[in-house]
This record gives sequence, structure tokens and C-alpha cells, in this order.
Amino acid sequence: MKSAISPTRAEDYPEWYQQVIKHADLAETSPVRGCMVIKPWGYALWENMQRSLDRMFKETGHQNAYFPLFIPMSFLEKEARHVEGFAKECAVVTHHRLEPDPESGGLRPAGPLEEPLIVRPTSETIIGAMYARWVQSYRDLPILINQWANVVRWEMRTRLFLRTAEFLWQEGHTVHATAEEALEETHKMLKVYADFAENWMAVPVIQGEKTAGERFPGADTTLSIEAMMQDRKALQAGTSHFLGQNFSKSQEIRFQDQNGELAYAWTTSWGVSTRLIGALIMTHADDDGMVMPPKLAPAHAVILPIYRDAESRSQVLAYCDKLKAELSTCAYAGRAIEIQIDDRDLRGGDKKWHHVKRGVPLRIEVGPKDIAKDAVFLARRDTGEQRSVARTELVQTFVATLNDMHANLFSRAMKLRSDNTRSIQSQSDFREYFTPKNADLPEIHGGFAECHFASEADVQPLLDELKVTIRCIPLDGNQPGTCFLTGKPADKMAVFAKSY
Amino acid sequence: MKSAISPTRAEDYPEWYQQVIKHADLAETSPVRGCMVIKPWGYALWENMQRSLDRMFKETGHQNAYFPLFIPMSFLEKEARHVEGFAKECAVVTHHRLEPDPESGGLRPAGPLEEPLIVRPTSETIIGAMYARWVQSYRDLPILINQWANVVRWEMRTRLFLRTAEFLWQEGHTVHATAEEALEETHKMLKVYADFAENWMAVPVIQGEKTAGERFPGADTTLSIEAMMQDRKALQAGTSHFLGQNFSKSQEIRFQDQNGELAYAWTTSWGVSTRLIGALIMTHADDDGMVMPPKLAPAHAVILPIYRDAESRSQVLAYCDKLKAELSTCAYAGRAIEIQIDDRDLRGGDKKWHHVKRGVPLRIEVGPKDIAKDAVFLARRDTGEQRSVARTELVQTFVATLNDMHANLFSRAMKLRSDNTRSIQSQSDFREYFTPKNADLPEIHGGFAECHFASEADVQPLLDELKVTIRCIPLDGNQPGTCFLTGKPADKMAVFAKSY
Repeated sequence: MKSAISPTRAEDYPEWYQQVIKHADLAETSPVRGCMVIKPWGYALWENMQRSLDRMFKETGHQNAYFPLFIPMSFLEKEARHVEGFAKECAVVTHHRLEPDPESGGLRPAGPLEEPLIVRPTSETIIGAMYARWVQSYRDLPILINQWANVVRWEMRTRLFLRTAEFLWQEGHTVHATAEEALEETHKMLKVYADFAENWMAVPVIQGEKTAGERFPGADTTLSIEAMMQDRKALQAGTSHFLGQNFSKSQEIRFQDQNGELAYAWTTSWGVSTRLIGALIMTHADDDGMVMPPKLAPAHAVILPIYRDAESRSQVLAYCDKLKAELSTCAYAGRAIEIQIDDRDLRGGDKKWHHVKRGVPLRIEVGPKDIAKDAVFLARRDTGEQRSVARTELVQTFVATLNDMHANLFSRAMKLRSDNTRSIQSQSDFREYFTPKNADLPEIHGGFAECHFASEADVQPLLDELKVTIRCIPLDGNQPGTCFLTGKPADKMAVFAKSY
Repeated sequence: MKSAISPTRAEDYPEWYQQVIKHADLAETSPVRGCMVIKPWGYALWENMQRSLDRMFKETGHQNAYFPLFIPMSFLEKEARHVEGFAKECAVVTHHRLEPDPESGGLRPAGPLEEPLIVRPTSETIIGAMYARWVQSYRDLPILINQWANVVRWEMRTRLFLRTAEFLWQEGHTVHATAEEALEETHKMLKVYADFAENWMAVPVIQGEKTAGERFPGADTTLSIEAMMQDRKALQAGTSHFLGQNFSKSQEIRFQDQNGELAYAWTTSWGVSTRLIGALIMTHADDDGMVMPPKLAPAHAVILPIYRDAESRSQVLAYCDKLKAELSTCAYAGRAIEIQIDDRDLRGGDKKWHHVKRGVPLRIEVGPKDIAKDAVFLARRDTGEQRSVARTELVQTFVATLNDMHANLFSRAMKLRSDNTRSIQSQSDFREYFTPKNADLPEIHGGFAECHFASEADVQPLLDELKVTIRCIPLDGNQPGTCFLTGKPADKMAVFAKSY
């Protein structure tokens, strides 16, 4: 059977990804290098993700605020590791107006700035400068603030949602009186992200700690959640950083403690971005297009009215309106059920595939014959299952069906990960695991490898050769063992994988 | 009686405005020239404004999307009037990385861009370029999209919320097949803004059309809502533009009409920004600080527990918790009632003034004596009225009280406007009206003048001399008359005022 998306995942995974985004109307490239346009269907998904995450942040005591888009160049210079990480790929504002260019007849930059401004790639430095003003005493702590914002990192090779010059995200920035409290916050927010990924996105994740070589520039500890995509590569879906006193020292965030002594504060930062939409696509979409996880879907169901003439049209539309009204009184995952009725003047097949490709969880078709039985034709996007169902049953089981779809998507993704995760003890097994079996299909390699390792420096050459990275040291159930490369005793097991 | 804000409005209005923002913890300046930090209390207000506006946009058929932060310089060059309006004050990105500067030991811009990028001052050109791709046939129309975004205009003299280099806003951009439909959209969205201003912000506004000299650069018609601030100056609180075919011609937005002929589309744009927060402050705040309009207040009430010892503490806190829970089950203006309990270890007077200055609509004080009567001490922020009220009455009348406060704020503002609006028929009256009576208090002049005028060019010198502008030609009830300056017949009456 021909699929709606061409090529399929098996044929050309990277191109399949682009085609899903195109056919699902989620986003597209813009005339501005590396910057994407998030289209209404993709943005509605992001809004639902924002709403759920925002609620979780507020429930854990955080407030939103907004800080400047620009960072003075001198601010970036203050934290050496941070500058190394972010100076290489940023948008630099050097002028504050345009003037006519007699030479070209067009415009040219004018009004040079005394100090160049950087479009924020992340906001530790500018937010830190404000916190330094706000924090005087231990009574001012903790500060628990989040910001929803756009950021810019000048990426050379971009890919919609996964790596774009501009992207949307949230960044939490907190200040604490003690290292323990800041570390606790770092872990708490990682758990929020894992909860969101698994219970809202239906994406299973591994919670772990990054090795020194993979840490955020300027962090003492970076925690992340890592998910397996359908090409068995890892995608880092969220990070939470314990920044120690690094930024509080470079930004002078000091407070008088309970003994009246001046101390540097401890800070954290944590973020997730529109990259999560890439994770959703690569976890759930199939060869027919997008599959929206039901809790975040912009619409839970679409109703397609089917009729031949004006008389049956009015009867069918009246039935559809009533059904929509009936379903809309229910709530699911914190918001009212959203139903679309697609009464556009298009062929039924075109309409059906339109919504299949966009990933609407449930498709309901209603024609005069269905109405005669007080039933509808119901199709599930995740399984493809379709059947006639009595209207009363549809309404009564609607939320249960969505819940079942969430559970099915999650367990399907979990099975993929389990089936493609192996514990590896030797270099030769490691090498073989990460070598594609078919040169035409570089995506098909082993997946995740769980390996004990003694030293990051020792394994790095092999990883570079195979284009594999250490994803994280899982937080749960980690045990000492033997290094897969050197046979030396190793404290910890890590997950190794190719990655985005 | 001493006021909480010094100076008072009468003493120094501009400085009073800054002090209200400071004491209400709404925002502050940042180390980045002209960019503000919106603090949690101010941002929560903005979130409530966003939520209500967003619902109104969706109810009128609009969807949200997101477009790039940057605009290639060549895009701005395409529409001559537009470039004149926006090229003079924009942030220009010319480089895409930083490198070590051996001279200073710091960093310097590197990696020059082939074409400079402008940080969007408004997005007609970049969104238009996308619409040109999306629109092929009349079947693709209308396009009804809104974006919530940050924009940058390099202002020389900035003022928190009213005029900042970076600000937050929404910009609607729509495309239509006919001029009539686009004009209808322009008027529809102005009505949405007027509805929001009056029924949510409690700010009365005049709906009108801008004269040619005051139009948006590139618009055929600009409509605006204008409000009177407490210093009697006008503040433009929202604009809606009919762009004709100007941008569709410069951006090539063309479609095949129902006869198969290629035609240029008709576009509109409309926006409101964080400037609305400035309007709220200058409409409702008083010499004791902010006064939040109840429908948008981040918290509807604060409960202050009052006790002397541990025993009464637990009794009082339990009562407060129960009261909060009871009130939180009610909804007002589309969201659950939000109640804060302030149990910080501070003097009662300090706590009270903290919330007065932040403008929380209702303050509820609860002590053991109140509990004995099953009553609370209730204070209204708008009127200052305070009284003991039975708990049951408080709960039963809570929403009615908030509604009454909204109505009171609105009628107070309306009265200020009526008291300071005059119909003027002669140049000498006009001159006298706009000349401050006291050189030390430049704010105290006449207010709004309703005058017929024959030609914008004729009145301009007088307006420049008096620093007065034509705010708008009111849409409702406008009649021909006689020009106040020349005595010539005049089609229309306009509102003249000093303005922000």
C-alpha cells in the first residue's frame, strides 16, 4: 500500500522528516537564513506544550518575567567557558539605523554602536546582571523565574525544529542561598521535564547527567533528558544546569547571609525549546505523516460530513454540529475537547488524507446511513483502526480512547527503545553496534549502548571515529562495572548513541 | 495625609509614573540601553492581557503563528514609505560571531554577513514574503494570522512601557481578496481593541481614523483607539491598518481570482503592545501606587493574617486558607479567582502598603477578633473604602464587588475625559486651551479639543508650536463644520491633544 509521505522512513529518514513537516503544515524555511516560520498548526501544538509546561513551572513555585533580547558584548566576556561556548555562533548588532547608500541606491547600516550587542543565545549573563541588583539579603532568596523567549544561535547547518538559527524556548533562572538547594532545584526541574515528556508528549526519556565534555558552557553539572528517535538516534530533549557560583561570581550576585556575612549565591538554569516538536515528530510520526499525541493535539478529532445533495447536507451538518457540541462539553488533559468540522468543498479522500497527514488523533465520518443508525465511522490515527461506533458509545468512551492512544504511543516508543538498547562490554562489539549494516541506510545502526567507561578522554577518539556521543550517565540504578574499552574499573555506566 | 508614592501626580507627573512602576514592582530599566525588564508582577498582568486578547482574536477567526525575528535589509527597501518610517531607528545585525580581540584582550565582531539583517521593528515585509508563497488562488484567502512577538525600534528617549527599544506586542497580518473585506477586517479589529480597552482594562477610548500625516508608513488608512491619561495627554493604545495593495505589490502577494485572472491581494495589519500597561498605570494608578483593573489583576485579593502568638497564628492561618479555598472556587472574567495569602514575617503596615502600591483590588485582613464574629476587614483599592464584612457576605458579593470596581474605574476615567474635553472654534481659544497655566506643571493644560479643520497642512505650524497633534477623526457621530483656524468649511471634526 502506498503511503502518504514519500520517501518513507526506511527509504530516506532525513527527507521523510522534512516531508512530514511540510505535509502536516507545521513549519517551513524562511528567506532568512536558518530562521523558520512556525505555521498555525505547528504553533497551536507549541501553544499547548507551553500551556502545560507553564502550569508545571507555576505549580513548582516559579513566576514568569521578561528580560532584554540583547546582551552587551562585555557581559559575554565575563565568564570564560560561557564565552567559548556561545561567542562562536551569535548574531551581532553593530549599528542602530539604516541610511540611503548612494552607491547601490539602496540602504546601508549607519549609526555604529559604542558597544556591540549580541542577540541572546541564552540569558544567564543579562539575567544574572539583574539578579545582582535584586539580591541583597538571604531574605531575597530563592529567586525562581522563568522566561518564554526567542533566542538566536548562528548555526551553519540547520534543520526545521531541530537546529535553527532562531528558536523559541523557555529558560528558567534561579538563585539560591546554598549549593544543596540549587542542586535540588536542578533535579526538580529535570523531573518536571521528564514528566512532561512522558505524560504529555508520550515520549519515554532517560534522565541522566552529562559528562564533563558535554556540559553546558559554564555549568558545574548538566542534567538532561534523552529520547530515542525512530532512526535510533538520541535527541536531547531538555537540560537543567547547576551553575555553581560561576555566574554569581562573574555577575556579582552576592547576599548577606543569616550571620551577616557576604556570600556568593548559587544559581541554576534550565530550558526546553521548539526542538521538542522535532522530538514529537521523530517519535510518533509514521509513513502517512504526523501523529499528534492526544494531550497536546491542536484538535482532538475532526468530523468529516459526507453527503450528496442539499437535503442530506443540512441533515448531516446538523448532526455533526450537535455531535461537536456534545463532545466539546468534555475536558481532557486540562482543556476542553477541541473538535474541527471540515466542510470544505473537496473530495472526501483529499480531506481524509489532509487530516491523516496533520496527525489529528481521531477522524469521525458522518453520512446519512450512519445517522440512520445513530452511529459514526471512527478512525484512530495511531493504529489505523477504523470501525462503526454508536454515537452514545463514541461520546462515552471519547476520553478513554484518547487516554488509550496516549498509552499506545508511549509503549510503542518504549518498545522501540528497549528493542534497540544493548549493554556492551567490548570495543569490537561497540564498533560493530554503531557501524551501519547498509551504506545506503546510515540510519540503521544499533541504537543506544549501555557501557561502563573509566575515562572520557580515553573513549573520545573511538567516539569521534564512529560519530557517537556519550548521551548521559543515567541517574537511576547506576552501578560500577568494567570499562568497555580499557577493562579498567569504572564508576558509572553511560548511554552512548549517535545523536541530533 | 502622606501618600505612598512621592512625588504625587500633581507635584511631578512624569516622575510619579516612574515611581509607581518601581514601587508596584512592574518593570525596571536594564543595562541594555532602552530595553526594559518586565518583572513578575508586571509580566503576570501582561499574561492576563494576552490571554483575553488572544481569546478575542481566536473568536474572530484568527490563528497564531511565528515568523522570523530578522528581516533582510533588501526587504525593507521594497516599500518606500515603509522604509522611511522604520529605517531610521532599527537594530542592524552585521556579523555572525565574536572572536578574541588581541588589542583589547576582549572580543570583537567577526564573520560579516553578506546582507545585513534588521531586527524586526514590525513584520509586514517578512510576513508578506511568506504570504506571497502561500497565496495562489482565491481559495487560499482570507489569511487571518496573528503573532505574539518582541520587536525593536531604536528610540533615543525611552520611558518604561511607553517607549522602549524592545517591546512585546501582537501583530495581526491578514490577506483578503477584496478591498471591502480588508477594510471590514481593519474596522473589526479596531472594535476588538476598543472592546478590550473598555471592558477589560476599564479604559475609555475614542475610535477614530488617523489623518494622512499620522498614518502608519505604508498604510492607506490607519485607525486607532485613543485614551486620555490623568495628565490629560492622549495615548494611542492600539492601531489597525488598511494597507491597500501597497505591501502586496512590493511583496508580490497575488492570487488567481474566480475568473482565473491574476490580482494583487489586499492586506491589513493591527497591533497592541506592552504600551497598554503604561496606559493602565496612567489611567488608574493614584498617589498610593498602582490600581489594577480587576479583570486583569494578577491577584484579585490578598489576605493578610493578623496574629500575636503561635496559638492564634494557627487559628488565623487555618481560617485564611479556608477562605482562600472558598473564594478560589468562583470564577471572574474567564478565570478562577486568584487569592494570595501574605504570611511573611513583616510589620502589618509594611505588608498593607506593599499590596496597596502593587494595586491588588481587594485587601482582606483577618485577626482573631474578626474570626470570632466570622467576619473580615475588607479594603477596596479603588475607593479606599474599608469596612468589616461577614464572611458569607464577602463570598457572596465577591464577584459583584469586582464588577463594581471595574465600573467605578471606567466611569472615573470617563469623567476625567469628559471634564477635560472641549469643542473649540477659534485659534485663540485653541492656543489658550493648550498653554499650561503654570510653567512648573506643564501637564496641566486643557486636555482634548474637538475641532473642525479644513487642511492638515494649514494647522501643522500651530500644532508644532504648541506641541499638539491630531489624534484622530472619530468614527462615530462626526459632522461637517467650520475650520477653527481658517473659517473654511470642514468635512470632519478631529480630536486634538498633546500626546505620548
